[in-house]
Amino acid sequence: MIYFDSAGSFPVLDEVKEKVIGAFNLHYANPSSDHAAGAMAANELERVREKIAESIGASPSEIIFTSGATESNNLALKGLLHCDLAKNKKHIVTSKIEHKCILSICSYLEACGYEVTYLSPDSTGRISADTVKTALRDDTALVSIMHVNNELGTLNPISEIGELCFRNRTLFHTDAAQSFGKTEIDVDDMSIDLLSLSAHKIGGIKGIGAIYIRDARDIDVLPVIHGAGQELGIRGGTVATPLVVGLGEACKAFPIYYAEADFGQITAHLECELKGKNIRYTINGGTRLPHIVSLTLPEIDVITFLLAHREDFSLAQGSACSSKEIEASHVLKAIGLDREKAERTIRLSFDFNTTKHDISTLVSKLKAFIESA
Amino acid sequence: MIYFDSAGSFPVLDEVKEKVIGAFNLHYANPSSDHAAGAMAANELERVREKIAESIGASPSEIIFTSGATESNNLALKGLLHCDLAKNKKHIVTSKIEHKCILSICSYLEACGYEVTYLSPDSTGRISADTVKTALRDDTALVSIMHVNNELGTLNPISEIGELCFRNRTLFHTDAAQSFGKTEIDVDDMSIDLLSLSAHKIGGIKGIGAIYIRDARDIDVLPVIHGAGQELGIRGGTVATPLVVGLGEACKAFPIYYAEADFGQITAHLECELKGKNIRYTINGGTRLPHIVSLTLPEIDVITFLLAHREDFSLAQGSACSSKEIEASHVLKAIGLDREKAERTIRLSFDFNTTKHDISTLVSKLKAFIESA
Repeated sequence: MIYFDSAGSFPVLDEVKEKVIGAFNLHYANPSSDHAAGAMAANELERVREKIAESIGASPSEIIFTSGATESNNLALKGLLHCDLAKNKKHIVTSKIEHKCILSICSYLEACGYEVTYLSPDSTGRISADTVKTALRDDTALVSIMHVNNELGTLNPISEIGELCFRNRTLFHTDAAQSFGKTEIDVDDMSIDLLSLSAHKIGGIKGIGAIYIRDARDIDVLPVIHGAGQELGIRGGTVATPLVVGLGEACKAFPIYYAEADFGQITAHLECELKGKNIRYTINGGTRLPHIVSLTLPEIDVITFLLAHREDFSLAQGSACSSKEIEASHVLKAIGLDREKAERTIRLSFDFNTTKHDISTLVSKLKAFIESA
Repeated sequence: MIYFDSAGSFPVLDEVKEKVIGAFNLHYANPSSDHAAGAMAANELERVREKIAESIGASPSEIIFTSGATESNNLALKGLLHCDLAKNKKHIVTSKIEHKCILSICSYLEACGYEVTYLSPDSTGRISADTVKTALRDDTALVSIMHVNNELGTLNPISEIGELCFRNRTLFHTDAAQSFGKTEIDVDDMSIDLLSLSAHKIGGIKGIGAIYIRDARDIDVLPVIHGAGQELGIRGGTVATPLVVGLGEACKAFPIYYAEADFGQITAHLECELKGKNIRYTINGGTRLPHIVSLTLPEIDVITFLLAHREDFSLAQGSACSSKEIEASHVLKAIGLDREKAERTIRLSFDFNTTKHDISTLVSKLKAFIESA
């Protein structure tokens, strides 16, 4: 089976496995326990906290471990609305192409009395700073715009949006699940107040992630998970030390591999093969991270093709988290694809094992499918 | 270093490690993805869901995976208050000896307008059904009483309390983090509506747990973590398949080991050694799970002893999650120990590697400490 779904979940890196297995043996104690074994585990948490902080230009005390980006997004959007910068404001700005969990949280916040503006992207899936500027109001409590879209790979102009929010005295959150480790992030340069990240998108283990909260020590945060004082009282529950150790290793190793990988060549090979076989296609999205390719194939009944090749290829039609639903992807809809085009669209996302041969295999099967139809 | 803190976190079982490592390689795909690799991962989730359900007499659809017992407790207490049985009721019953996260959630609920009754245990740390009966009111939305206390090991009369709640048409939640896998649980026999459990208390991996929600498909639950429709829409976030696989293995293997382990003999050896060396002691708690021993040593300055032997023993003074705080344990206070006695109390919790020799080493060092004082 060929795996083209690293944006859904990245294969676990070998060095991550090794460190996590080591931590199962060494760091099984509760890091909140005040004994030597607990302190050893707690030291690991601090070491990784520093590593993550360093990688985004933050302070270690601003990094809070969570179960993943979804929980971080919940904390960002539900936990910060009572802090000084946001309280008594009842307006939230986000986009139509956020991860479904953000849309789900916003729907909940609407039920709680918040007004939410859902910005439209341009046809490449980019939310322009101008669009954000037009939406900002005096009572805008928070702006949440993802850094990189999970279906298209499109990068948003986070620095410009951050700058606008800073000037408007509005909290700025970005879901960096798809970008962390893959492109530069500096929370100060980009004026980011809140940032969500996940281990399993960069070769770490599912079940761990983090949130960056600017000045976390001094800000009033309502926990999503109330607990026994862990993580500055912001996030309850025993912190999963072995998973954190894995996240630390992924933070270290992944960006190096990613920078070295030539996903551009893989995509070029894909285009070359499609053209060579006279298969019509469009690649959606503009300025993109190179490991994600959203491909519309107007001549091919993609759903039937995928069913026929279920054992051959693991790839997404629509985003991973919503792909069990029948409705067309909300992201593809938002960039103007009609239902039929959305259905004829696949997302290929590459990892460090993806080869040109994998691409050739896919294109050959597509060609054979067209010919047999 | 001798580890006496299995109640804080149980060492990871070898078979759990093996299965989890296997799952890192086999089941890294996103279980929400609608491709063969995703489906394989999703199948693992269903297999484990069935295993957990079977072990507590529930249906698989009533088991929702979470990041651990703390998150499950949050979901139980914050997520169910709008369901038919609880809505428009403003009273909650819990006890003074719950895990700190329950107390923290209840404090939040008080701020939201709920009235919370905190029941006192008897001197053995047991919450009697009569105490619960007296506290129940027509407007009692939910009762939350832990199955086994984490500091004392004391078992609560869950069946009787469940029966009372059932008759009062009140939701009954029990935090089973310390009991699951160690003593029989049947949610129907015990009239439990909501039950929290954690993997790392039974030799699984930190970062995964579950909640049992009676009739989860039909009940109105407000998610703690809003997401993209995972776990019946009740808990968002990519489910951590490898950790779930580990939880499944722990569910299978742990109860067998636990039943075979003779913790009673370890405790008997402890008492014999203490008596032999003329060290005065009290074991707190009444009917207890045998791997937890709360030991008050009136002649010994326990804090100084533990500091002197920081590298020799990993054990808790107070509960693990609050032991970095200076105040005396809320549990020991609740069973009537004054601050001085609480400070002279340690919790020993045994695992499958604990030997009589470990106990002898501890008692010898205690004796030497007394003599040197």
